Amino acid sequence: MRKNDPEGVRSRILDAAAELFQDRGYSASGMQTIFEKADVTSGGFYHHFESKKDLGLAVIRERVAEAVQQTWIAPVVAAPSTISGLKSVFGSIASELDANQAVRGCPLNNLTLEMAYADADFQELLEEIFANWQRELERVIKRDQKAGVLSRTSPRKTAAFVIAVYSGAMAMSKVKQSSDPLRTCLSQLTDALQAA
Amino acid sequence: MRKNDPEGVRSRILDAAAELFQDRGYSASGMQTIFEKADVTSGGFYHHFESKKDLGLAVIRERVAEAVQQTWIAPVVAAPSTISGLKSVFGSIASELDANQAVRGCPLNNLTLEMAYADADFQELLEEIFANWQRELERVIKRDQKAGVLSRTSPRKTAAFVIAVYSGAMAMSKVKQSSDPLRTCLSQLTDALQAA
Repeated sequence: MRKNDPEGVRSRILDAAAELFQDRGYSASGMQTIFEKADVTSGGFYHHFESKKDLGLAVIRERVAEAVQQTWIAPVVAAPSTISGLKSVFGSIASELDANQAVRGCPLNNLTLEMAYADADFQELLEEIFANWQRELERVIKRDQKAGVLSRTSPRKTAAFVIAVYSGAMAMSKVKQSSDPLRTCLSQLTDALQAA
Repeated sequence: MRKNDPEGVRSRILDAAAELFQDRGYSASGMQTIFEKADVTSGGFYHHFESKKDLGLAVIRERVAEAVQQTWIAPVVAAPSTISGLKSVFGSIASELDANQAVRGCPLNNLTLEMAYADADFQELLEEIFANWQRELERVIKRDQKAGVLSRTSPRKTAAFVIAVYSGAMAMSKVKQSSDPLRTCLSQLTDALQAA
């Protein structure tokens, strides 16, 4: 069965690794544990990935970037305004943390703080994802400014600020194992954007 | 010599481990590498620490908490106002990053994103340090509010927001390997605090 489904195996490895990286981090996820969780042999693994690092970069490219796009960028872009988009995104992430009764944090920030200094290839790829995130946010901020619903402070800097608030709030939610910091920072952020 | 200086050995191990955790993270720092960097034998190490985890918690207690106190809390508390304190702290950290031409990030946030979900003892200790940070900041915000130099929004929530902005800005500075996000977020933050 598996031999006839190489894409299924590859996908299963990516899912298992993404889960393990969220639970314990990249470095603490041993190859044997990854093989077991993905239900794959060593040979099966190396058919798809050259090395653990090759897997790590693929997880970022095909799982983490996708998560940022689906759970964050897409809903904010689709919302009637940046502020309503932020309320909806922070709100649904906070509700999900409450439902899980555990905070594993933002996969992009987790891997960034673990790997961006230690490995230049991780750094480059992670930086691209942050840059795309900032560009997309800048675009909706500009749109709102044209519509007169957001004041004319630098859209690029405002976008960076929003991402910083979200990233830092998730770090604080992770350390407290509570969605409170995320909710507090959302209300502080929307106040700041409306007052600007 | 070393046998007569147990505190010196212990301190050298803590310094070496703190450096390694900043360079590559807790999990990726192998015991052998720690022994070598600290110039200590395995026996010498286990005279001072029961385990790697025991060392990790001691690094947080005796090095990371101290770094937050010295480089962040103390200068903000000593500054004439919260805003001037934040300008001075963000500014000197940004200048240091520029001088190093490398961003290893905030040691407290690095260890939080790596360990706060994976290990409950790390989580508890890291949470205490964040809570103390927030309390100290809340205290100076209240002082400024009494003096009429900062508006009367919740000091507790404002303190959480400031820490989130700093933590997130450091994550972005780490991914970009540049002090720019830190400087951008400082100016956005002070605008927000002044407009509130």
